Amino acid sequence: MPRLYVEPDLALGGAVALQKEQSLYLAAVLRKVVGDEVVLFNGRDGAWRTRLTSDSKKSVTLEVVEQVAAQTPPSELWYGFAPLKTERLDYVIQKATEMGAGIIQPVLTRYTQVSRLKHDRLVANAIEASEQCEVLTVPVVAPETTLEKLLSTWGAEQGDRQLILADESEASASPVEQVAALRGQKVGLLIGPEGGFSEEERQVLRAQAFVTPVSLGPRILRADTAAVAGLALIQAIIGDWR
Amino acid sequence: MPRLYVEPDLALGGAVALQKEQSLYLAAVLRKVVGDEVVLFNGRDGAWRTRLTSDSKKSVTLEVVEQVAAQTPPSELWYGFAPLKTERLDYVIQKATEMGAGIIQPVLTRYTQVSRLKHDRLVANAIEASEQCEVLTVPVVAPETTLEKLLSTWGAEQGDRQLILADESEASASPVEQVAALRGQKVGLLIGPEGGFSEEERQVLRAQAFVTPVSLGPRILRADTAAVAGLALIQAIIGDWR
Repeated sequence: MPRLYVEPDLALGGAVALQKEQSLYLAAVLRKVVGDEVVLFNGRDGAWRTRLTSDSKKSVTLEVVEQVAAQTPPSELWYGFAPLKTERLDYVIQKATEMGAGIIQPVLTRYTQVSRLKHDRLVANAIEASEQCEVLTVPVVAPETTLEKLLSTWGAEQGDRQLILADESEASASPVEQVAALRGQKVGLLIGPEGGFSEEERQVLRAQAFVTPVSLGPRILRADTAAVAGLALIQAIIGDWR
Repeated sequence: MPRLYVEPDLALGGAVALQKEQSLYLAAVLRKVVGDEVVLFNGRDGAWRTRLTSDSKKSVTLEVVEQVAAQTPPSELWYGFAPLKTERLDYVIQKATEMGAGIIQPVLTRYTQVSRLKHDRLVANAIEASEQCEVLTVPVVAPETTLEKLLSTWGAEQGDRQLILADESEASASPVEQVAALRGQKVGLLIGPEGGFSEEERQVLRAQAFVTPVSLGPRILRADTAAVAGLALIQAIIGDWR
């Protein structure tokens, strides 16, 4: 059954009118007709089974039939990354959503390949991934910031959140124990760009009290692989896989 | 510096003649000339810095200058997966290589999307990923098999290897503890197809004494995401990230 993110409130017996783009998708692409069912969610009211009451390609309307998943709290997990080129950027947003990041923060670093991001496109990717992966709250994609600004405003913006840094130079005995030591705290994961952080950036990062550098093993990981691997560790050890 | 997998032995002062395709790549694509340096590895002798002594586009030759990495033993980690469509299949092979799988086994299941695989293409992908990720031994890509055959020959082929099964239906308290319980044993990870295993397949899998079903969290993961996430857990908890 298709699963769509919508803005309006969802409640038993309520009616929802879809915007043009989603109407076209359901009525023209998926060829849904009156009586067909679709799951809707909005990040506030859980997920609901709904039924088409109009299959107009300009304005599909649906009646809200039954709640199929209760709303869960939004994820507190922060994920920061140096943006990649477009195709792989889309991919990273999808993967972070799948892995349960709640806040996705593009961070411009010295060796970052791109400088201006299409924010709308990143948000669209987060929505699409949420629709596919049965995430109930679409992660927030924050506007890009610089590494310098991120660090200088960390305490004010993030409170006591701890930042796990994927650091190729870290010769740690066990990333498992390092992550486990952060249990009960709000955490974030920061992945550097292809080519890594500059030496100066790494020194500054490692000097922060809120930063825990961890090793993701002896092989060179692409940034998107490191994202999934790092988020998997966090979710399994101190996150919502438990 | 480019990094290439070759067949010949590598030893100090030795000479290596590249095959046509790699010669063309170095001399024409990368425009390397006599005196330029390249890293070579063969899965047996570690990685070596080498220097071009001919930049012929048909036959590049190199002299072996210095060992830059000692050979490490091949990975014992087995990774089985239900093959996906071509593009994502390439991707899965690359990711498994990056994550340090030693044996990559395509497994045909009831809901598998493809039935015949281009074995050469899978091997080429494993080689390319090894070149890029500084893996010293290219993983072995086994010919495809069926789930039924895999299970009926497991003991004979795999000895006492334990098989970690990513199972959406598993409501385990902690995949970390389940993986940690396999410490010191040879392990494998099996990821099902998009759409999952059939109910019958899952029953049969779960009935095997060598199978440990684990949960990869509450969200639906794509097969390629599940591969990276599952291999990250194994490497971090009982593998070579320690």
